[in-house]
Formats: sequence, structure tokens, C-alpha cells
Amino acid sequence: MLERIKLADLQSKVMTAEESAKFFKNGMIVGASGFTRGGDTKVVLKAVAERAKSEDLEITLFTGASLGHGTDEALAESGALKKRLPFQVDTVLRKNINAGNVLFIDQHLGESAEHILNDTFKIDIAVLEVTEILEDGSIVPTTSVGNNVDIAESADQIILEINTSIPTSIRGLHDIYKVEKYGSRTPINITSCDSKIGSDAIKIDPSKIVGIVFHDIHDMAGDIVPADAATSAIAKNIVNFFEKEVESGRLTKELMPLQCGIGKVANAVLAGLEHSDFENLVMYSEVLQDSTFDLIDSGKMNFASASSMTVSQECYDRVIGNIEHYKNKIVLRPQAISNAVEVIRRLGVIGINTSLECDIYGNVNSTHVSGTHMMNGIGGSGDFARNAYISIFVTASTAKGGNISSIVPMVSHVDHTEHDVDIIVTDEGLADLRGLAPRERALEIIKNCVHPDYKQELLSYFERACAERGGQTPHILEEAFSWHTRLKTTGSMKKSSTESLVS
Amino acid sequence: MLERIKLADLQSKVMTAEESAKFFKNGMIVGASGFTRGGDTKVVLKAVAERAKSEDLEITLFTGASLGHGTDEALAESGALKKRLPFQVDTVLRKNINAGNVLFIDQHLGESAEHILNDTFKIDIAVLEVTEILEDGSIVPTTSVGNNVDIAESADQIILEINTSIPTSIRGLHDIYKVEKYGSRTPINITSCDSKIGSDAIKIDPSKIVGIVFHDIHDMAGDIVPADAATSAIAKNIVNFFEKEVESGRLTKELMPLQCGIGKVANAVLAGLEHSDFENLVMYSEVLQDSTFDLIDSGKMNFASASSMTVSQECYDRVIGNIEHYKNKIVLRPQAISNAVEVIRRLGVIGINTSLECDIYGNVNSTHVSGTHMMNGIGGSGDFARNAYISIFVTASTAKGGNISSIVPMVSHVDHTEHDVDIIVTDEGLADLRGLAPRERALEIIKNCVHPDYKQELLSYFERACAERGGQTPHILEEAFSWHTRLKTTGSMKKSSTESLVS
Repeated sequence: MLERIKLADLQSKVMTAEESAKFFKNGMIVGASGFTRGGDTKVVLKAVAERAKSEDLEITLFTGASLGHGTDEALAESGALKKRLPFQVDTVLRKNINAGNVLFIDQHLGESAEHILNDTFKIDIAVLEVTEILEDGSIVPTTSVGNNVDIAESADQIILEINTSIPTSIRGLHDIYKVEKYGSRTPINITSCDSKIGSDAIKIDPSKIVGIVFHDIHDMAGDIVPADAATSAIAKNIVNFFEKEVESGRLTKELMPLQCGIGKVANAVLAGLEHSDFENLVMYSEVLQDSTFDLIDSGKMNFASASSMTVSQECYDRVIGNIEHYKNKIVLRPQAISNAVEVIRRLGVIGINTSLECDIYGNVNSTHVSGTHMMNGIGGSGDFARNAYISIFVTASTAKGGNISSIVPMVSHVDHTEHDVDIIVTDEGLADLRGLAPRERALEIIKNCVHPDYKQELLSYFERACAERGGQTPHILEEAFSWHTRLKTTGSMKKSSTESLVS
Repeated sequence: MLERIKLADLQSKVMTAEESAKFFKNGMIVGASGFTRGGDTKVVLKAVAERAKSEDLEITLFTGASLGHGTDEALAESGALKKRLPFQVDTVLRKNINAGNVLFIDQHLGESAEHILNDTFKIDIAVLEVTEILEDGSIVPTTSVGNNVDIAESADQIILEINTSIPTSIRGLHDIYKVEKYGSRTPINITSCDSKIGSDAIKIDPSKIVGIVFHDIHDMAGDIVPADAATSAIAKNIVNFFEKEVESGRLTKELMPLQCGIGKVANAVLAGLEHSDFENLVMYSEVLQDSTFDLIDSGKMNFASASSMTVSQECYDRVIGNIEHYKNKIVLRPQAISNAVEVIRRLGVIGINTSLECDIYGNVNSTHVSGTHMMNGIGGSGDFARNAYISIFVTASTAKGGNISSIVPMVSHVDHTEHDVDIIVTDEGLADLRGLAPRERALEIIKNCVHPDYKQELLSYFERACAERGGQTPHILEEAFSWHTRLKTTGSMKKSSTESLVS
């Protein structure tokens, strides 16, 4: 184990997680590695949660994105979290956020490091998972890079978790590039998905390392949810759209660099590409999932860039066990680079992200159930949707057994405005909104994307809004959320036979 | 005059505006120069409007931004406009848009050329104002660049308006750089406001030039609205904020590159800087107004970059009459560059933009009166707000003699989400939202920015939303627009003494 600490002076810093937890003080701002279960800290923060059960110990926790292994749950349950950013997916933490017990800052993932660079957050202590410490004190990340570069630079003290389950041969998989402070920045010189512009390890000041903890715990496996009828229909609609774009000459069979949000729709879309005529695909995304590696292994995809990998146990073993094989096919970057607006726009990414609900004009709610309750967070969807060549949002046309229509008169929370939404896809069909004004967008969305149970009422709303109120974006404000309030009152957005929406 | 056509073959193309108008056909997509009154086409489109009075002639008009000289009014009134993008400020056109007679695509100005580059819009015919045609057929723009580069490249036919009131010595004021199509882009290598990366003229295929029209009409003068009490208070609040940032060490006396939206608040803020301790200021913005030149002339500002200049008659004469003097102090760029997300983020711009209304969580409506009726358009505000180092939004705390509160429970239309809004400033005060979660943001905004007439009711709404509904972003959806519906019913957002909001 100790051979993983090549800067020998640091070998004296090895300690247990419990010992390292003593460095944490009440009120500290803590930075930690971890991006959607990949490369998260696995033992130190749990020990901090344990301490918080019996001590007055509340921290602000700043990570890459979500964490695995129930760490957010443990911290939230023990009352250790005062503030959390920039993303989460944990059920217990979510409850605490929505109850107002934990303050949550929901952020564009590509911008989160800016809050360190512009001194909004100064990191007191960092906890970073690594595979090894090099001779000069540089650290080699594991299965994600996230915000580790800026967290390490900002932190006064650093605790490292050395994960011995990851072979040190992973070195070279990462492309570590530091965005400078404002005022001294130069272009991020990535011109294709496989451009490498940085180094293979994160430079840090070794004197800041106060503790080193060994463990051999695997990343928590990603959930593999099989495609259902709606998901498969959405994937088919997207593949058909791509085929038509190729026919029209606007895309080639190589498409453009793909970005896919996490989850079953993304996996279904990518699986759809595996059995298509598309070829030499590339990916510029934030997370690599099983479907990415399946496309690589089947020869359909040449290269994939991201900040993290979150895969099933089978895929994890396949990739980590053959890391040399994948080293020239994938790269993991800081999220300030995987989600950099300049690179996304330059490369012409096709962004595919999930919406909770969207409205007749194409505004998208990705985060807030009924406009108030946080689901996960905006994640990187805004980085990609705003800057993509084509910005696609997907959702099943209904939820909760048909009682919720995913297309509503007005979204109850806006994460992405109509300016940033080119295509909306449901199991019902696809609305191509490019070059359309709001009134045209409404007709296209209602015609193509809405479930039959809701189509007539939505069209009636739009027509009455045009006739009674008019405007660039016609709405009847008193009715705009009537579907949401009906859901709250009756358990369904569907109009009962006796009810008339026209009051 | 003819010496301004240096490619002599083209001298035979000189004609009247009326003659040139005959090239326009029903259904055409027309691209035109013009960005907020600067460098707009002044005679050809008016002749097109004249034709449309008696002929079936409807076009889609794609410009840089708004136009001067009543061109949009003439086109709208004659029924010549089917679709208009990406921005406008004309009263008559606005009425037609809101009545549904003209389809308007409201766009991020920095992205508008993308719709040409990605083949959403193919330009049939272009009308561009220039000062001269060079030996190789290249054209030199006048007081704006806008989307001229991409319009000229896309167009099948080009008509040039040569404005002889602008001296040909303006050549060299522009920095013409063409963003390539997706798939072959490289970094936009601007690393400071005065970086020049392009040429001094727009390359075009001279065989596309079908007509050349001479005129000597000045740009329409910008409106100079004197600062009022609210505007001055807002400006003072911003200058105070800058001073505190300097004290804290987060900014220096040179600040960072400034961007200001158009109008009296922007002018008041910049005027405030003239009598401050700040020095060596620079600007990376989209429009240069009088205040910019006042700062340059007073020695406070070293350099200003934009896509257009829109100034008073006095300032116009001062600048155009001494163009050699200003040539190394300002540059005009394509709006794809002045508003390029990668440059804005790289330089660390401080963006100051105007909101119509904002809500307790910091979401901003810049465009839609009462959620439905278009005012002007989102313009470049989104390009800057999303990517700025500090994104500031300003608004007077009330409008319409106090009957409208500019801070409402929920904005009736979202142009900028809370993620993209760092600071909100009214005449009442300034809310610094950096590093705050939504519930913290609400308290900060209500405390600092809301007019006393509305403060208590807004606080009550927020507290009841927290208690009754909870969530990350507490709202009572049935009440969220109650201030807007009250305004519609009673003419005021103020609660009458007998009315209780709690229904």
C-alpha cells in the first residue's frame, strides 16, 4: 500500500478515517471529490457524520456532483449538513432540503468551480479520492475528476483517500487542466473530443496534506433501469430524427459529439444508436454510463470525454480490469472542462437531457416537483442546453399512471427557457422547434408531444390565451397553474367530467 | 462617390432604392445590417415597405438587433413582415407582434448567427450598409457589424447601401472574424478587450452583389434620457458595491471588463464611474453609448469593445468627426464575438442588465409585460448574465406611479433563472445573492430591494409559502401571480384595505 505514496515524507500521514475526521471543525467549508457516484470519498465523510451525531458539527459541503455509498444520507441524518452544493440525488438529503433543514445551492455544474475561483467559497478542508501520490506530491484521481482541481487549490488542509481497488495504471486516463482566475485566462484549447490539453495528475502543495486514509471500496454501482415502452418510443423518435437530419444533409452519419444526461432514457437512446447506421460516433458529456462502453466495444463509438464514469458492477469490472485498453478511447476531465461553455459550443454538441415537465412554448422544468420541491438539481443540463448545436429535451408524455401530463400550460419552475430548447421528444412524438416563434412552437408541441388525454384541453388553453389575452407568449395567468393545483386537489391533472376549466 | 466602389466592375450596379427593391420576392428571408440604430439599412427596406403597400410581399427579416429610422414601423404597417428576428424596439412592430400579426423570434443576440450557421435560416437576399467596397470586393461596415458577416455569406444576392456620411477613414475600426461552421471551429483567441483577431473588412463574393445604393443619412440619434431619482440611486448602489468589492480585495480599482445594457440606468452607472476612484476601465459590451465615450474622453476608460455604437447627435459628430483619434480606443466586432460566451467568461465581464421584474428567488423577466406581451426582446442580456463574473440586474423598485412592484412573488415570464443572477439592485438597495440558497436569497431580496409599500406582503407570502408548502423554492402556486391579476383587475398591485390575500 505504502508504495502508492511516492513522496515518502507523506507516509507518516497515514491514519484511520476516524482520526482524519478530527480535522473537521464546526462551520467549515468542506470540498470533496465525487461526481455521480464516481470517485467519491467513501470513508472520511462518513466518519464526520458519525462525529456529528454527538457533537455540534455543521459543515458546508461542496462536491463535484452527487455522491454514492449513502454519504449524503449519513451527513443529512446526523445533522452535519448546513449547506450543500452543487448537486445531489439522495432521498434523505432531498427530504431535508425540501423541509428547509439543509440549504441547497443548485448550480450549473460547469460553473460550480467559478464560485471557488471568484472567492464566493473558500475551501477549509478537502477530502479527495486518489489512486496514488506521485513523487512531487501530485495526486492521481480515480473514476471522476469533478471539482477536485479547484477544491485542492483552495483548501487549507487536504485529506486523501487512497483507493487501492483502482490499479495505478489508471494514470493517463485523466486530462487535468486548471482554468485560471478571471483576468488571466486563455482559451481552453480543445478542438475535438479527444484533445488532451493538460497533465495526468493534480498538482498540489504537499504540505497541505494532513491525513491519508487507505481503503479498497468500489464505486457504488450505477442503477441499470431497463427500457420501458415510453423510453423505447422516445429513443426511436430521436434516432428517426437523426436519420432525417442526415437525409437533409444537416448531419452526417457521424452525427456530432453527443451528450446524454443520466438515466434510462439516455441509455435507451445510446442503445438505439448501437443498432443503427451511424458510425464513428464521439461523446462530449459529463458522465459515462454502460451504454457508452457498449458503443465503444461494438465499434460504433471512437472516443468519449466526460468528468466521471458511473456504471454497473459488470461494466466497472470490464473497464477497470482492462484500463489500458480504454485509455485511448476515453478521457476524464475537470467538470469546468467537460462542461465548459466554450468547448460545448465550439464542438457543436448534440445535448440530450431530461425534463420533469415542459410547457407549450418549450420552457423546461428539470428540477422542481410542482414548482417547489427539489428532485435532484439542474446538473449540467444548462451548460449543454444553452450551448449545444441541437438541444434536445426528453420526457415521457405522462407520469403517475397518466395522472400527470408532462406537457403543461406553463411550467411551475423554469430551468431552461424556450431560447435553449430546440427539440422536445416524448413517447408520443417529436417537436422540432428550430426557427419557430412561440405561437408556432405551441402548435408543434401540442400536435406532436402531448398525450391524447390532455391534448384537447391544452389546445383549448392555447387558443383561449391567444383570443383573450394575446401577446408574444399568450397565457391566462389565473389558469396557467390550474393543472398543478388540480393535481394537488384531486390527485390528477385530468379534468373531471363535470368540471369546466373556463371559470 | 464612385471612388467608394474600388472594384470598378461593380460601378455598373449603382441604382436607386426603388430599383433595388424589385429584387425582393414574396416569402424571401432577408438579412439586413443594423444593431440598435447603428449601421442599419436606411433606404432599401423602406422601399420594400412601399412596394408591400400595393403588392403581395411578405418577408422574414433577420437583422443584428433593432433598426432606426422607422424601418420596422414601415415594414410592419405595410404588412411586409411575416417573421422578424432577433430583436426589435419599435412601437408599431411591437403592437403587431403582440396581436399575432408578425411572428417574432426572440433570441440571445450572441446566438442569432448560429441559426444561419446551422442552416435553420438560409438568407435569400441581404441589405448591408457599408462605407466602401474594396478592390477585392470586401466591404467595410459603418457603425455596427452585427450579423453582417454571416448574413453576407449565406445570402444568394446582396444589395449594398454605401453611406457617404461616414468617412472611409473608419476602416480599421472593425475586427471582422468569422466563426466557422460547427465541426471546424477553433478558439476565439480574444484574451483582452483590445485583442484584434480578424480583418478590417468583410470578405464576400462580389458576383452576389446585385445592387448598390448611395445615401448620406446619419444613424438615428440615441435617446438620451436624463437620470431620475431612482436611476441615480441605483447607480449609486452599484458604485458603492464596487467600492466594497475593492475593499475586500475581490476587485481592483480597474474593476473587470464592463458590459452595460442600453438605457438610462446604464448611462447613469457609467456616469457614476466618471466621478469615482476607479481607473483604467475597459468595456466588453454589445453597444457603445454616450457614457462610454465620456469615460474615454475623461481618461477613465482605456478601451471599449462592442458590436455597435448608438449615441446622441453630439457624440456621433464628436466620434465620427475624430475617428482616427478613437480608432485605438474602440473596436466594433460581429455580435457572435462581442457576445461570444467563451470570451465573456474568459475575460470575467461584469454584466449590468435591466429587468422588467424579478421575483423573491432572483429569477428575472426582461421581456414580457404581465407574462404575455413582448416589450423589446432578451437581446444580449442572457449571453452576459449566464457567463459574467458578476451578473447584476437593475430595476426601479416600482413602476407606474407605484402601482407596480418590480419585485413580485413569482415572475410571470422567465428570461434569466436564479442561477444566472448574482446581484439585484433597485433604488431601495442591493441584494448580493452570491453563495446563497433560494430561501436565503428571498430574505436578502425582500430586505434590500423591495419598496416599503410591498415589503410586508411579500415577506408574508414567502413565510406562508415556507410554512404551508415548503420545498427548495417555496411557492403557493395559486397565489404566485396574484399581484399580476390584481393589477389587471384593479390597476394596481397594491392590496386594497379590505382585501385579504389569504383566500
